[in-house]
Amino acid sequence: MNSLVGILGGMGPGATVDAMQKLIKNTPAYRDQDHIPMIAVSIPDIPDRTQCILQHSASPLDKMLQYMKILENAGAECIIIPCNTAHYWFNELKQQCRAEMISIIDVTCQAIRNANTTRVGLLATTATVTARIYQDNLINDDIECYTPDEADQHQVMESIYAYKSGNIAGAYSMLSPVKDRLLQAGVEKIILGCTELPLILEQEVKTTPQYYVDATEELIKKTVEWYFTHSPRNNIAA
Amino acid sequence: MNSLVGILGGMGPGATVDAMQKLIKNTPAYRDQDHIPMIAVSIPDIPDRTQCILQHSASPLDKMLQYMKILENAGAECIIIPCNTAHYWFNELKQQCRAEMISIIDVTCQAIRNANTTRVGLLATTATVTARIYQDNLINDDIECYTPDEADQHQVMESIYAYKSGNIAGAYSMLSPVKDRLLQAGVEKIILGCTELPLILEQEVKTTPQYYVDATEELIKKTVEWYFTHSPRNNIAA
Repeated sequence: MNSLVGILGGMGPGATVDAMQKLIKNTPAYRDQDHIPMIAVSIPDIPDRTQCILQHSASPLDKMLQYMKILENAGAECIIIPCNTAHYWFNELKQQCRAEMISIIDVTCQAIRNANTTRVGLLATTATVTARIYQDNLINDDIECYTPDEADQHQVMESIYAYKSGNIAGAYSMLSPVKDRLLQAGVEKIILGCTELPLILEQEVKTTPQYYVDATEELIKKTVEWYFTHSPRNNIAA
Repeated sequence: MNSLVGILGGMGPGATVDAMQKLIKNTPAYRDQDHIPMIAVSIPDIPDRTQCILQHSASPLDKMLQYMKILENAGAECIIIPCNTAHYWFNELKQQCRAEMISIIDVTCQAIRNANTTRVGLLATTATVTARIYQDNLINDDIECYTPDEADQHQVMESIYAYKSGNIAGAYSMLSPVKDRLLQAGVEKIILGCTELPLILEQEVKTTPQYYVDATEELIKKTVEWYFTHSPRNNIAA
């Protein structure tokens, strides 16, 4: 078996599947056997990340560590987490992880820098925004990071919870005007900094990709790159 | 954690993700934490199932057993395999598995019986057709099982390999006339008896669901039923 990629998922389950789908789509493959070996743990009883950060409710860390160990024990050599808010605990997870880990925040911020963007908008959970997970990463590069006002941010969070509850149309109608206002405010690109957002704005990302940086997509591109660096004998892309 | 579902996947990777997506869609859930805990192993270096059955090339059994053990060791209590052809080895896998296993063939044939269908068409890999995996299961119920003629069956197999190679449009254009001919021959329903087929015929299954029995969907419905029988404290469907 070539290098195994582990996906610490379930936050939420739909975003986990989206990450796997994107891993498949980003792999040059002509038959099953060319694809990247992956193992995904999607055990969604991990406590709500946003509620923990904002309201100091139960921490998701212990469960995340427990499920990360399942991936390690199965032989995962690189572990990714398709949940932006969970990266609040990234360093604590990394410290206890024998496998390599790729940060969705780092790769997304790098994509912003590579695109020479100077004014970005951020759509993310209220916890990701409040904890300044993205803003602090971009601050040294003179990249201005616009976030929605309080009412709009509330609507973003409601949209994410609506999507998680299966109300896809409701999620879209809440989110769409907020992204319009960010674009009208003059941002060049919007970071989709919560893994539910590229699912809610799927059509927009397809039709006007120049306006969006999909954090899940950036994470996956880096993971594919990691794989082909570590499994040269399977490198059909070469 | 509630009862954990294990998915022995990678045959192919797209079908694995489709099964996970269908598990999410078939679960009544209002937040991440309501979803069914799952672990999916998608390590696609398992030798080609069809080539083994038809040409006696390398057997996929050892790798399937190895990856099934990963799921068992992670605590999976029920294991499913979203690949019809792999069920040629179902009994051998089941004999060595401590967890419960649900057969995609058994649940799909039961769905055919429940629908009081007497004339079904079968679209599947040439190995599944030749090994009579479906036909022998239905023979005692006076259900006639129509399979494509040799040229059409060749086209079905080419369509499946095309899909696996990423040629989605080509896969559709090869498969579509074959399903038309089966329907014109008077079958009431077509078994989509290879987990790539509901992906290739996605639009048809959406617009004319009465003509299709999607084996993946049947497997998942039974898995959801298994879960809510075994994790009563999480039964929000009750």
